[in-house]
Amino acid sequence: MSFRVSVLTLYPEMFPGALGLSLAGRALADDTWSLETVQIRDYATDRHRTVDDTPAGGGAGMVMRADILAKAIDGTAPEGDPRPRLLMSPRGRPLTQARVRELAAGPGVTILCGRFEGVDQRVIEARALEEVSIGDYILSGGEPAALVLLDAIVRLLPGVMGNEASGTQESFEDGLLEHPHYTRPQEFEGRTIPDVLTSGNHARIAAWRRAEAERLTAERRPDLTALRGQPVTK
Amino acid sequence: MSFRVSVLTLYPEMFPGALGLSLAGRALADDTWSLETVQIRDYATDRHRTVDDTPAGGGAGMVMRADILAKAIDGTAPEGDPRPRLLMSPRGRPLTQARVRELAAGPGVTILCGRFEGVDQRVIEARALEEVSIGDYILSGGEPAALVLLDAIVRLLPGVMGNEASGTQESFEDGLLEHPHYTRPQEFEGRTIPDVLTSGNHARIAAWRRAEAERLTAERRPDLTALRGQPVTK
Repeated sequence: MSFRVSVLTLYPEMFPGALGLSLAGRALADDTWSLETVQIRDYATDRHRTVDDTPAGGGAGMVMRADILAKAIDGTAPEGDPRPRLLMSPRGRPLTQARVRELAAGPGVTILCGRFEGVDQRVIEARALEEVSIGDYILSGGEPAALVLLDAIVRLLPGVMGNEASGTQESFEDGLLEHPHYTRPQEFEGRTIPDVLTSGNHARIAAWRRAEAERLTAERRPDLTALRGQPVTK
Repeated sequence: MSFRVSVLTLYPEMFPGALGLSLAGRALADDTWSLETVQIRDYATDRHRTVDDTPAGGGAGMVMRADILAKAIDGTAPEGDPRPRLLMSPRGRPLTQARVRELAAGPGVTILCGRFEGVDQRVIEARALEEVSIGDYILSGGEPAALVLLDAIVRLLPGVMGNEASGTQESFEDGLLEHPHYTRPQEFEGRTIPDVLTSGNHARIAAWRRAEAERLTAERRPDLTALRGQPVTK
């Protein structure tokens, strides 16, 4: 069964974008996942296809209207649709690999991409939108964030990655950053591959990689060490 | 002067992607920023244009070669090029809005997009690549991450956002998530706009917004409260 994606946006032409190429593009072509884009303006009711209005209380920018968005959501993922309804938003819960895995295991996602100053709070509450943040920075809209979320999900869908092992031993899967990588040539500008990696001793190699991953994580991301030892998949 | 972007990638056709549309697309068309994509394979030396090899020490996946990448970097941003050299990588320092502002204030960026298991550690060290992570999840490659980083940067370039005020009062700029937004209609499915916002009392509105931003941040992102009161711009 195909993983069903619906994206509500003012810029349908931004999709599939990078997801139409490489692994994700092949998976889209062979129906491992499907992508529907919905132009929010199609649910506007006036001649100018207006979807936004000035913020109540004043201030800069425009706010996307609750009534128009509700109609777009209801037309795309009506009550009973089993897919989570996500709103890409810097106010959301930070996306984690664990949440990506949960979403990839489900039937699909409906994603609302905000633009302008944001989205009327009432539609977030009335349609129980899950606000998802991909990081602590501001984008021009939800679209680039949706592309990132979908890229992370699609690579985990069954059959997408040629080598299943690549999906399990990587950064964050065990609360650690990944160890350094090396490949040929043996010498590069006077720098050589660490001896242990060419020793053929698999136990020593595994121990070195683990130690390097722990060193890097402690050095760069002490905030992640709290997770260590806890399974991060559900 | 144009903000100069060079992207080293195995998928040049993923760019400008969403950045060719909307605000970023107009800014690209009017030369507020420029985009050069570099096919890393053009720097391979064999008939098959190979850029990767098996990991030293064994394991799944492939590693991008230090020698090929070094040549691609040197051909694109030779010594003396003033632009930061970034490597999109989940092992990197988490991207913040403060770092986005710093980058946007500079002459441009050179971005290397990793693929496969990763990049030979020696080229990261030899070319002093700054590893940048957009979040704690795994992507198919650095390209979607680069698109997100560039979107965040470009919107801050002079003249890109019509309303300058929109650039300053938003999530993270003061270590707080943004307050909820409302706009017309006054009533939506029985839900009304909070009275204070239609009171016309600007001081009360500002106080309410601040209190809501603080409540939301404490509720959803207690990790951000440590930043509160500190200026996050450089």
